[in-house]
Amino acid sequence: MPAPTAVLAANAAFYQAFSQQDYAAMATLWAQHYPVACIHPGWPPLIGRDAVLRSWKDVLRAPEPVDIRIENVRSLEYGPGAALVLCAEVLNGRAVLAASNLIVLEDGVWRIAFHQAGQVVAPLDNPDAKPAGRIVH
Amino acid sequence: MPAPTAVLAANAAFYQAFSQQDYAAMATLWAQHYPVACIHPGWPPLIGRDAVLRSWKDVLRAPEPVDIRIENVRSLEYGPGAALVLCAEVLNGRAVLAASNLIVLEDGVWRIAFHQAGQVVAPLDNPDAKPAGRIVH
Repeated sequence: MPAPTAVLAANAAFYQAFSQQDYAAMATLWAQHYPVACIHPGWPPLIGRDAVLRSWKDVLRAPEPVDIRIENVRSLEYGPGAALVLCAEVLNGRAVLAASNLIVLEDGVWRIAFHQAGQVVAPLDNPDAKPAGRIVH
Repeated sequence: MPAPTAVLAANAAFYQAFSQQDYAAMATLWAQHYPVACIHPGWPPLIGRDAVLRSWKDVLRAPEPVDIRIENVRSLEYGPGAALVLCAEVLNGRAVLAASNLIVLEDGVWRIAFHQAGQVVAPLDNPDAKPAGRIVH
């Protein structure tokens, strides 16, 4: 698979595991050797595969699965072995998060190394607008 | 300079330009050739050097400079040319943001390629605690 296609496939697999509450698939998707970190919305950073996967086990244990749609997916490439995928996560058709996923090539497989998501308070249809409610920078 | 030191120096220079409202320094710090993107707190992603620098010009034009202290700085390396720096941004001694900065080696210089910051609602002294006010994952 060409690199951009494989990167986007890894990104899609991440959201599939998320929406299907499939912890085993989620654990397989994260890097084994490269450092792993995750910033859930409102959380401080979790660093290390164990801490990150513990958090996902907890998130994926929610009684009701979250309906997750991703929009505006963009992949930015940094050399042959690293890419950053940006997308909007639309949760239950309402809350919109801006997410970044750092995806790295490890033993020939593209794996998630880092995920950060934060709630968007600006209207999505005007990305240049400054959110009215923004508190800081 | 060894890579981790140079990466941390680029990260420190970013926050120095931010707190000193130094747009010229900020513009120099961002990558020229690699793709550039930025997610300010509450904003949708800005993609492309022009859009990102326009946003920083606006942010740095604030009438009162922001007092920014960074804490818990951690650098994660992804091969010889890419690193992710995670840190807490403490703004005016109050608001705490969790930030990630993707820093890449470009023409022998470490430059910022991506920045995302989001407000932390969990207590910093217990990073395993789930924020009480979190809305989504």
